Amino acid sequence: MASPIRVTVWNEFIHERSSDVVKSIYPDGIHAVVAAALREHLGERVQVRTATLDEPDHGLSKAVLKETDVLMWWGHAAHDEVSGKVVKRVQKRILKGMGLVAMHSAHASKIFRRMMGTGCMLRWREAGERERLWNLAPGHPITAGLKEEYFELEHTEMYGEFFDIPPPDELIFVSWFEGGEVFRSGCIWRRGAGKIFYFRPGHETYPIYYDANVRRVLANAAAWAAPSGAPYVGKGRNIPEPLSPIANPLESHDDLHGAPPANRATR
Amino acid sequence: MASPIRVTVWNEFIHERSSDVVKSIYPDGIHAVVAAALREHLGERVQVRTATLDEPDHGLSKAVLKETDVLMWWGHAAHDEVSGKVVKRVQKRILKGMGLVAMHSAHASKIFRRMMGTGCMLRWREAGERERLWNLAPGHPITAGLKEEYFELEHTEMYGEFFDIPPPDELIFVSWFEGGEVFRSGCIWRRGAGKIFYFRPGHETYPIYYDANVRRVLANAAAWAAPSGAPYVGKGRNIPEPLSPIANPLESHDDLHGAPPANRATR
Amino acid sequence: MASPIRVTVWNEFIHERSSDVVKSIYPDGIHAVVAAALREHLGERVQVRTATLDEPDHGLSKAVLKETDVLMWWGHAAHDEVSGKVVKRVQKRILKGMGLVAMHSAHASKIFRRMMGTGCMLRWREAGERERLWNLAPGHPITAGLKEEYFELEHTEMYGEFFDIPPPDELIFVSWFEGGEVFRSGCIWRRGAGKIFYFRPGHETYPIYYDANVRRVLANAAAWAAPSGAPYVGKGRNIPEPLSPIANPLESHDDLHGAPPANRATR
Amino acid sequence: MASPIRVTVWNEFIHERSSDVVKSIYPDGIHAVVAAALREHLGERVQVRTATLDEPDHGLSKAVLKETDVLMWWGHAAHDEVSGKVVKRVQKRILKGMGLVAMHSAHASKIFRRMMGTGCMLRWREAGERERLWNLAPGHPITAGLKEEYFELEHTEMYGEFFDIPPPDELIFVSWFEGGEVFRSGCIWRRGAGKIFYFRPGHETYPIYYDANVRRVLANAAAWAAPSGAPYVGKGRNIPEPLSPIANPLESHDDLHGAPPANRATR
Repeated sequence: MASPIRVTVWNEFIHERSSDVVKSIYPDGIHAVVAAALREHLGERVQVRTATLDEPDHGLSKAVLKETDVLMWWGHAAHDEVSGKVVKRVQKRILKGMGLVAMHSAHASKIFRRMMGTGCMLRWREAGERERLWNLAPGHPITAGLKEEYFELEHTEMYGEFFDIPPPDELIFVSWFEGGEVFRSGCIWRRGAGKIFYFRPGHETYPIYYDANVRRVLANAAAWAAPSGAPYVGKGRNIPEPLSPIANPLESHDDLHGAPPANRATR
Repeated sequence: MASPIRVTVWNEFIHERSSDVVKSIYPDGIHAVVAAALREHLGERVQVRTATLDEPDHGLSKAVLKETDVLMWWGHAAHDEVSGKVVKRVQKRILKGMGLVAMHSAHASKIFRRMMGTGCMLRWREAGERERLWNLAPGHPITAGLKEEYFELEHTEMYGEFFDIPPPDELIFVSWFEGGEVFRSGCIWRRGAGKIFYFRPGHETYPIYYDANVRRVLANAAAWAAPSGAPYVGKGRNIPEPLSPIANPLESHDDLHGAPPANRATR
Repeated sequence: MASPIRVTVWNEFIHERSSDVVKSIYPDGIHAVVAAALREHLGERVQVRTATLDEPDHGLSKAVLKETDVLMWWGHAAHDEVSGKVVKRVQKRILKGMGLVAMHSAHASKIFRRMMGTGCMLRWREAGERERLWNLAPGHPITAGLKEEYFELEHTEMYGEFFDIPPPDELIFVSWFEGGEVFRSGCIWRRGAGKIFYFRPGHETYPIYYDANVRRVLANAAAWAAPSGAPYVGKGRNIPEPLSPIANPLESHDDLHGAPPANRATR
Repeated sequence: MASPIRVTVWNEFIHERSSDVVKSIYPDGIHAVVAAALREHLGERVQVRTATLDEPDHGLSKAVLKETDVLMWWGHAAHDEVSGKVVKRVQKRILKGMGLVAMHSAHASKIFRRMMGTGCMLRWREAGERERLWNLAPGHPITAGLKEEYFELEHTEMYGEFFDIPPPDELIFVSWFEGGEVFRSGCIWRRGAGKIFYFRPGHETYPIYYDANVRRVLANAAAWAAPSGAPYVGKGRNIPEPLSPIANPLESHDDLHGAPPANRATR
C-alpha cells in the first residue's frame, strides 16, 4: 500500500482564543476541525499534524517541513507576525513538490502572496449572506463526491472580484453571493514541482468547516496536492556538456570568465 | 493620434564598463541599443528613456515610474544590488498596468522573481552555439513581421529547461539549441492590470541586440505590453453594500467588529 | 495610417422577421445594431458589412471571407440550417487568422462548437432578471473604457454554469444573476492564428445591443480580434531537411516509403 | 480497494500486417505492446482490452465505451476510414469523463481533431534522428518515475512545430530533435469531464513502445486520465427556478414562448 500523505494543518490560532463566538464554534481551533475533516474522508491514507503561530518557528521547522507532503494554511489577524525566514523556507519546499492549500483569509498571507507575486486583495462584506459555489470543473479530482452542480453555504462572509491573483492554471469553483458579487473560490496553480489550491470558504464566525461539502473538498484537495511526478531540478545543476561538439562555435571572448563566481551568484 | 508609448529601458550597465569585449559590442550600453531598436520600429509611436543601476533610485523614482508605460529590464551581475524598495515600487506599478519586458539574464532579477513567485533558475552554457527560436504563436502581435516559422541566432549562450517559472499564460517562442537543449524563450504572464513578457535573447558578449528579428520582437513586445483596458481596482475599496437587503442574514455576532482596524491591516 | 479592420456581422435574421416583439426592438435586424455599435466606437478604423442566413452561401462566400478580418456571429433558431461546407470554410479562415466574435446564443452554433470541440451547452432561464458582468481582466484591451468593476443589465435571459466549453485561454467576464447563477460571460481562445471571443449578452427580446457598455465591449472585441502577428503555417509544408547531417541515422527500412502518397493524405 | 481502471487500447492495425518491417517489430500489433506496458506498470490497478479498425464498430460499440475509463488511440494510414458515427460516440463519452490518450500519428485522427477544433498539422521527417524529451512539468503525475530532466530516443521520426493545436492546458514535454526542430510532445487538455493527453513518441518503424521511459509515461497517462471528480452535467437539464422571486422582472413578451420546441432544438 502507498505510504500515507503527511499533512500539516497550520493555523494562526488567535480568534479562537480571543473571541468567545469563535471559541464556541472552534473550541480546539480551526486546525483541529480541518484535521478531523481530512481524517474523516481519507482515513489511513492520511497522517495529519497541526502547527500554530506561537510555536517555535511557528511549528514549521525544517524537520517538520521535510516530513510534510501538504501544508494547509489558515491565517487572518496576524499575517505580519509570520517570520520572513519561515515563509522563505515554505516557498522552497513548495517549489520542491510540497502541496499548499490556502484557506479563506489566507489569501492575504505572506506565503500565498509570495507564491502569487500579486496583491491578492479582494472585496469583502460580513452580512451573513447566502453563497453558492458552482463547480466549473466536473471530472476534476478536487470535485469528487460532489453530487450537484453547485453547493450552498447559508451564511457566509462575502469575498468578491476583482481578486488580484494570477490567472489560475485551473478554475474549479466560482461563487455566487446573494448581495451581487462573484468570486473565483477554487483556484489551482502549479509552481515548481508543487501544487497550490486556494479554497475560499471558512470564515471564523461561521461554522463553515463543519459543512459536509466543504470538508469533502478539503480532503480531496489534500489528496490532490500531495507530491507526485518527477523530482524538481530547479537548482544546483552544473553547466551541461553539449550533446556533441558545437559545429561552428564562437570562440569565447568573454573576459568575465576569469571573474569571481560571485558574478553569477544570483543565478 | 494616440499618445506615444512611454518606455523606460533599464540596464544595470556594468559589463559594458568592466569588460573590453562587451564595451566593444555595446559602447553606450545595452540600453542604448535596445532603445534604438524601439525607435527604429515604432518611430513616433514610442517615447524612450533609459535608466541604470548607479543613478539615484536606480533611475526609477516614483515620478519616472508614473510616466512609464512599459519597463524593459536587463541585469546580470548585480541583481542583488537593486534595492528592495525600488523592486516593491515597480511591482505595484506593474499591477496597476505598467508592462514589463524582462530580457535574457533578467530571469534572475529581483523584480522578475518577485512577480513570478518561483526560483526562475535554468541550465546554461556559453559555447557560442546555434539557437533557433520557433514561433508557437502565429497570429500573436508579438510575432508580427516574422517571416518564417523560426529565426536563428548563430552564436548564443544556451539557456535550457527546466526553467522554473509559472506555466506561462501564453507561450510564444521555444528555442532549440545545437547542444541538445530546449527553452521557453518567449513567455507571457498577466499580473494585475499589467502584462509581462520574458524574452531570452541577449547575452552581453554576443551582438544579439543588433539582430533584425530580435529587434522586431522587442519593439512588438513594447507595443503589446503598453497599458490597455479597464483600470486596476485591487486596493483601497470600501466594503460594498449588498445589491438588495439580504433575505435571511445571520445576525453578526462577530465580536471582532469592535477590534481595532489593525486586525484587518493585512487585508 | 493602418488600413481599416474589415468586419462582417453575421445574423441568422429570423426572430426579427417572425416576432413582433423582436421586430420592434431590432427592426433592421440585430446585425444592423451591432454594425452601428462598431461604427460608433471605431469610426474609420473599421469597415463593416453584414451577412445573413438566407443569402447565397449565407453571405459567406470565399471572396467575402477572404476580405473579412473579423467575423461576428449571432444565431439561435436555425443553427442546423447553416451549411456544413460554409462552417468548414469559416473554420479554415479562422485558423489562418480571422477573428471570431460569437455572441449570446451563438454558443450553440455549428461554427462555435466546431472550434471548441465540446458540447457548449449551458443552463438558461427567461425571467427578465438582473445581471452583473464582473470584469476579471483589468488591463485587457477588451475591457477598455469600462469605468467600474462591473456593469449591469437590468433585464436579461439567464445563462448559467456548467458551460461546457474548453477552459478559456483568458477569462474576461463572469456574470452574476439575480436568480442564483454565475456564468463565464467573456472568454478568449486562440486557435491557429485566429482569436476567438465569446460574449454572452444579447437576447433577442431584450434591447441588450443598445446598452452602452455592451457596445463598447463589442467594438473592443472586434479591434482585438483583428489579425496580427506572423502568418499561419499549419499546412502544405514540405518535409524539411535537417539542419546538419544526422550523426548516426537509423537506415530507413520503412517500406511504406514506396507506398502511394495517399497513405499520408490525412496528414 | 479501488476498482481497476478499464482501458481500451485502439489501433488501426494496418502497417503491422502490410509491412514486414513493422510486423517484425510489432508482430501482434502496436496495441498489444501498449497493453503490455500498461499491465507491466499498473498491474492489478488496470484492466486492458484492445480494439481495432476492422472489428464491427471498430471495436468501439456503445457497450464497450460505456465500460471504458480510458481510451488510448493509435492510427496513421486509415484515419479517413474511421466512421463519423463512432467518432461522435467517442466524443460524447469523453465529455462525460472518459480519458483519451492520443499517441503519435493520432494527432491527425478524426477524434483528436474533433476534440481540438484545429488542423492538428505539423512538420515531419523520417531520418532516424535523435530526440530528447525534456520534462517541463516536474511534480506532474504523468512524469512520475522519470529520473532525469529529459529522456532520449535514439532513432525517431521527427515531428516539428508549428503544431496546430489549441494552447495546451498543461505542457508536459517538449522535444528536441537533432535536425533542428522542437515539438510539444506531451500536452494536456480538459474537455467536459474528460482528460486528454497527447504523447508524441511512437512511430511504427522504430521500436519506440519498448522503450522503458515511454512505457512508464503511457502507464502514468492511463492512470491520470481515468475519470475522477464530480459528474458531467452538460446536457438535459431543465430550466432552473430562480433561488428567490425576481425583484423586478421584465414581463416576458417573448412570443417565441409559444413556438414549437424545435426552435430550441439546437440548444
